[in-house]
Amino acid sequence: MSGSSIGQIFKVTTWGESHGEALGCIIEGVPSNISINENYIQTFLDRRKPGQSKFTTQRKEDDKVKILSGVFDGKTTGTPISLIIFNKDQKSKDYDEIKDKFRPGHADYTYQMKYGIRDYRGGGRASARETAMRVAAGAIATKILGEKIKIKGALIQLGKEKINECNWDWKEVNKNDFFCPDKTCVKVWEDYLLKIRKEGSSVGAIIQITASGVPVGLGEPVFSKIDALLAKGIMSIPAVKGVEIGNGFKSAELRGEENADEIRYKNKKLFFETNNAGGTLGGISSGQDIIVKFAVKPTSSILRERKTVNLKNQNTSIITKGRHDPCVGIRAVPVGEAMVAIILADLFLLNQNNKN
Amino acid sequence: MSGSSIGQIFKVTTWGESHGEALGCIIEGVPSNISINENYIQTFLDRRKPGQSKFTTQRKEDDKVKILSGVFDGKTTGTPISLIIFNKDQKSKDYDEIKDKFRPGHADYTYQMKYGIRDYRGGGRASARETAMRVAAGAIATKILGEKIKIKGALIQLGKEKINECNWDWKEVNKNDFFCPDKTCVKVWEDYLLKIRKEGSSVGAIIQITASGVPVGLGEPVFSKIDALLAKGIMSIPAVKGVEIGNGFKSAELRGEENADEIRYKNKKLFFETNNAGGTLGGISSGQDIIVKFAVKPTSSILRERKTVNLKNQNTSIITKGRHDPCVGIRAVPVGEAMVAIILADLFLLNQNNKN
Amino acid sequence: MSGSSIGQIFKVTTWGESHGEALGCIIEGVPSNISINENYIQTFLDRRKPGQSKFTTQRKEDDKVKILSGVFDGKTTGTPISLIIFNKDQKSKDYDEIKDKFRPGHADYTYQMKYGIRDYRGGGRASARETAMRVAAGAIATKILGEKIKIKGALIQLGKEKINECNWDWKEVNKNDFFCPDKTCVKVWEDYLLKIRKEGSSVGAIIQITASGVPVGLGEPVFSKIDALLAKGIMSIPAVKGVEIGNGFKSAELRGEENADEIRYKNKKLFFETNNAGGTLGGISSGQDIIVKFAVKPTSSILRERKTVNLKNQNTSIITKGRHDPCVGIRAVPVGEAMVAIILADLFLLNQNNKN
Amino acid sequence: MSGSSIGQIFKVTTWGESHGEALGCIIEGVPSNISINENYIQTFLDRRKPGQSKFTTQRKEDDKVKILSGVFDGKTTGTPISLIIFNKDQKSKDYDEIKDKFRPGHADYTYQMKYGIRDYRGGGRASARETAMRVAAGAIATKILGEKIKIKGALIQLGKEKINECNWDWKEVNKNDFFCPDKTCVKVWEDYLLKIRKEGSSVGAIIQITASGVPVGLGEPVFSKIDALLAKGIMSIPAVKGVEIGNGFKSAELRGEENADEIRYKNKKLFFETNNAGGTLGGISSGQDIIVKFAVKPTSSILRERKTVNLKNQNTSIITKGRHDPCVGIRAVPVGEAMVAIILADLFLLNQNNKN
Repeated sequence: MSGSSIGQIFKVTTWGESHGEALGCIIEGVPSNISINENYIQTFLDRRKPGQSKFTTQRKEDDKVKILSGVFDGKTTGTPISLIIFNKDQKSKDYDEIKDKFRPGHADYTYQMKYGIRDYRGGGRASARETAMRVAAGAIATKILGEKIKIKGALIQLGKEKINECNWDWKEVNKNDFFCPDKTCVKVWEDYLLKIRKEGSSVGAIIQITASGVPVGLGEPVFSKIDALLAKGIMSIPAVKGVEIGNGFKSAELRGEENADEIRYKNKKLFFETNNAGGTLGGISSGQDIIVKFAVKPTSSILRERKTVNLKNQNTSIITKGRHDPCVGIRAVPVGEAMVAIILADLFLLNQNNKN
Repeated sequence: MSGSSIGQIFKVTTWGESHGEALGCIIEGVPSNISINENYIQTFLDRRKPGQSKFTTQRKEDDKVKILSGVFDGKTTGTPISLIIFNKDQKSKDYDEIKDKFRPGHADYTYQMKYGIRDYRGGGRASARETAMRVAAGAIATKILGEKIKIKGALIQLGKEKINECNWDWKEVNKNDFFCPDKTCVKVWEDYLLKIRKEGSSVGAIIQITASGVPVGLGEPVFSKIDALLAKGIMSIPAVKGVEIGNGFKSAELRGEENADEIRYKNKKLFFETNNAGGTLGGISSGQDIIVKFAVKPTSSILRERKTVNLKNQNTSIITKGRHDPCVGIRAVPVGEAMVAIILADLFLLNQNNKN
Repeated sequence: MSGSSIGQIFKVTTWGESHGEALGCIIEGVPSNISINENYIQTFLDRRKPGQSKFTTQRKEDDKVKILSGVFDGKTTGTPISLIIFNKDQKSKDYDEIKDKFRPGHADYTYQMKYGIRDYRGGGRASARETAMRVAAGAIATKILGEKIKIKGALIQLGKEKINECNWDWKEVNKNDFFCPDKTCVKVWEDYLLKIRKEGSSVGAIIQITASGVPVGLGEPVFSKIDALLAKGIMSIPAVKGVEIGNGFKSAELRGEENADEIRYKNKKLFFETNNAGGTLGGISSGQDIIVKFAVKPTSSILRERKTVNLKNQNTSIITKGRHDPCVGIRAVPVGEAMVAIILADLFLLNQNNKN
Repeated sequence: MSGSSIGQIFKVTTWGESHGEALGCIIEGVPSNISINENYIQTFLDRRKPGQSKFTTQRKEDDKVKILSGVFDGKTTGTPISLIIFNKDQKSKDYDEIKDKFRPGHADYTYQMKYGIRDYRGGGRASARETAMRVAAGAIATKILGEKIKIKGALIQLGKEKINECNWDWKEVNKNDFFCPDKTCVKVWEDYLLKIRKEGSSVGAIIQITASGVPVGLGEPVFSKIDALLAKGIMSIPAVKGVEIGNGFKSAELRGEENADEIRYKNKKLFFETNNAGGTLGGISSGQDIIVKFAVKPTSSILRERKTVNLKNQNTSIITKGRHDPCVGIRAVPVGEAMVAIILADLFLLNQNNKN
């Protein structure tokens, strides 16, 4: 099945299990003569890498990426780019206990039922470790989009703690362990999350991704609207439970005259007076910022005892030891950026054909 | 581009403009020997049909569907099913005024920029009239899913007015003009929406779709998770701005032990004690009810004057006369049901191949 | 299943049965602002139309095509183009006898076994009547390719009678009933085929399609080589049993130095001294003429008694009355041209993305 | 672009350049719980491996395949299978001379024009070395097809030397260096090909692949006929210039009553009296042997001087030194088997959905 592929022209296919030998992806449809090297991709991967602060999993993976094909003398050749990351710090024995039990909130039960077999080590294919390859592919997508299109993500809610949008400062995002754009939240969030962690628990989060500089015209009518493809891409990230474009759910409460963005022309430029739409009209980018928000559920692997069932259909309970993120939403920020880049790059290339 | 197609095995491709001669679709991948006739499909279309109450557009379309291929002696033959609805009540002159102006909140500007040409009559391809064919395809999808899988939709919020979930009664849904499951809301909503309409305005809405009886195992890992495909399908409906699965955005605030559904075994059956996940784990259906919510923005075509720009880049204003829904979210209920049916039917057929 | 679709960007999906109400297709991916009307498409259809000479079936179909969507004010809008031809001269009763018998050489048995049901009237979906829509789609593909690319077909062998390649004159092709480029063959072929027909029999044929003016660079490496996609497109035409590119099977006998086309540069142009390759190197067009040949088997519907089996597994025999082509290869000429146009248009649009 | 992928359910995506670090592929859609290990795949690869006799290239590659994902405890898990072969004996300096020249009969010119860059080392992506991954994927396809379906290939013509079909003995095929089924040819072919090789030249070949035990019903109507997909798969093999199903080009000369296979019923079995069709009717397998023939052109890399042009558009000449097969058609036998297996496995899985 093509569950492991995304995109029509810019096509990413990932493979690999959390505790297998390696993870990788093939990226097809990259135009030729683009400069790409391993260091460039690595800077993207390093933002997502585990073990970087006390707020993420302590698994130590350097996530060193290697380019195996499609790049020659530092330039893309137009042929498929194969990327690989070898796994290093697999502690598979951590998972022996869960071999026969279904962890609540995890894919153990559904994989077992669908396939009749599962690689239980670290969640196998269902592990969030799979997202490393999304980030690597996102790095290449970013190159295709060029310098004018900027994709930036931020954590805007951690558990019950929300940022104050008035304090938003993109420059803060890379200065703290949360990708938080509101400086005033950082200390509060640190205390909050350490407490959650100490209690062996976890919380969810809300992330916003903003893509600016996107040209008018990306997205295809009806089923491949830019909104629809972004929703698919974002909702495919592990643990994501909701996606919004622009005003999102809030738009339900608004009236037509409050919501539809008025249009003006000034200084030889057409512009919109507001951006309630989040940068898309009729499924096609309008030239405004694309604004996507998404909700990540709390990590299901926690140190608290939970009721469950084993492979023999016996009632039992489980405490998931391993090494886990108290808020998997933090590392979802670079993953969300990557997914937006992947979707936009594909629509960008698809749109070449509308120019006749 | 394949923006007009959805699905991998059960594949729906729609065509047609709001004020063109006809609308239609081709449905590929329908197994043979399924009983289907025009009356059956018509019952689905009639739920979405315009002009049925004072709360929807007054355009009079009987939306009579015709089967042109793929069905022989009342049974599917396994070949593509072609469906058509001829348009009748096109008042294209209503649209003469908007020929040269971009309606705020509509696709006029983005289509014009993307294609350099647009069928401005009634929104052309971007019109919500396109959703008639989604409903027709959904009827066929429903047949494939069989009697055990039930897909039902309801309006749970109209503008600022929410239902009380405690009053939920599925039987009420078809007894009022709103697909509202809370009897106590109906009168309030009537008054509210008539007032909105009288003011020449509109409001948004929130819809919930529940699919029960879905077997464990639908959905493909990574990019074609059931959540991702539902999000794509739902977000592709015109005017939709947000999608949630299960707890959705609320899950951001929860802790791991509050959110992950515990598992038990009793009376020879495995079951979950709660359904925060909305029926999916790791992107694969768990056998619980699939619960999807989505937000519809307020209709952008309103009788209030709005600032905009014309094709000559002059500042101007517009009042969209035509015949419009004061809350397009109402008729989005059967459309949402149809999209869920279409996505599930495709995943259902795809899943046949995992059984070896 | 997507058996009824072809193409990745320029995507054609056909539907309809030989004796159903209508035949049609949806064409996606057509760039906007291309001038297209029904008369233009009709000129292509008229070349394939049945009942035009005593050498083709006597079924009378005017094959009038109607555009239902995607064209506005005579120009394409970038949205799906829906085409339809209503059937007129269906004599379904002709087929009553074959309802329960499998015609040798036809798809009756395989459809029955695959689907457990079949529309037996005129071969249903398996009828060569389906190719009308390929020709209509080919007309639109031709527009996309533009005036510089010319696609022309000719019948080069009728049964055992071959043309003399030295007499090849493209101007002759449209002056006889066979699309024959060798004037000296026409009378011979007439006598030959009338005799075959009088005997209630049929013969096969070989067709050559030449595409000139094709730019360098069409085709994608490995599995979507231009050769591979042409082979697929041509072999999908009913009754085709073989496809060759350039020297084809003859190349097996040659030595490397005889076969590989040498390259020269003169008058500011790179050129090849020969065209054994048929216009493709490594699966990518080289700028030379694309040369495709294909073999069509003799019509299986003949007036001679043939042994077969009925639905009750009884041995019996059959004479296929109906109205049939004594050489279905003749009308395969415009169908072959159409398929080459469809494949090239798709590769042409796909190739836009290699230009960065 | 998806040129590097083939298949709809059973989907193979290959990557890698001839002289890059490694070659690999991802195989999606493999049902779970199938036993697969590296040794099993290796037996297939070893049949294609270079350097095994004096009639193939002397490049020494052990082509050791490694499974990186999708297999757990010796069984497939339903997730993507990633295979890799590291290159060892790359003598890239052999190719320094051709860096700036276009080898006649090769893809050098077309890749350079399409992409503006090319990995010239050993033909890069266009090298026949790419077919190693087709063979590996074919091994897995063979597992899916099961023991009842047997796919066997043979070389039936080497240059001008044809086998005598009366001497056909499948057991001979693996006893000589040519996959030749006619024992009487072997000595003749050895002398013939050694002479060709000594002269620094090469010849083409014709290969037949037979698939027996294929169930009725594989193939999808219209564009995805089994014939069409086989033609695409086979024609995508480097150097292939022609494909035939059943009688192929010979069928052009036959009459309807000679060509259409008569049907009989005996001993509770329906059967055909002949197999002119090559196992397919209306694009759907009939249960008879599938018979595919294809022509391979002579290797273009020869030790004879050939006229060509360099990157500066200067007329020059070239002798391709490197290490080359005097008849690349020999190693095309296992590659042809693999492609037939890949196509059939995909159609086999697709056909699950027609069973309702």
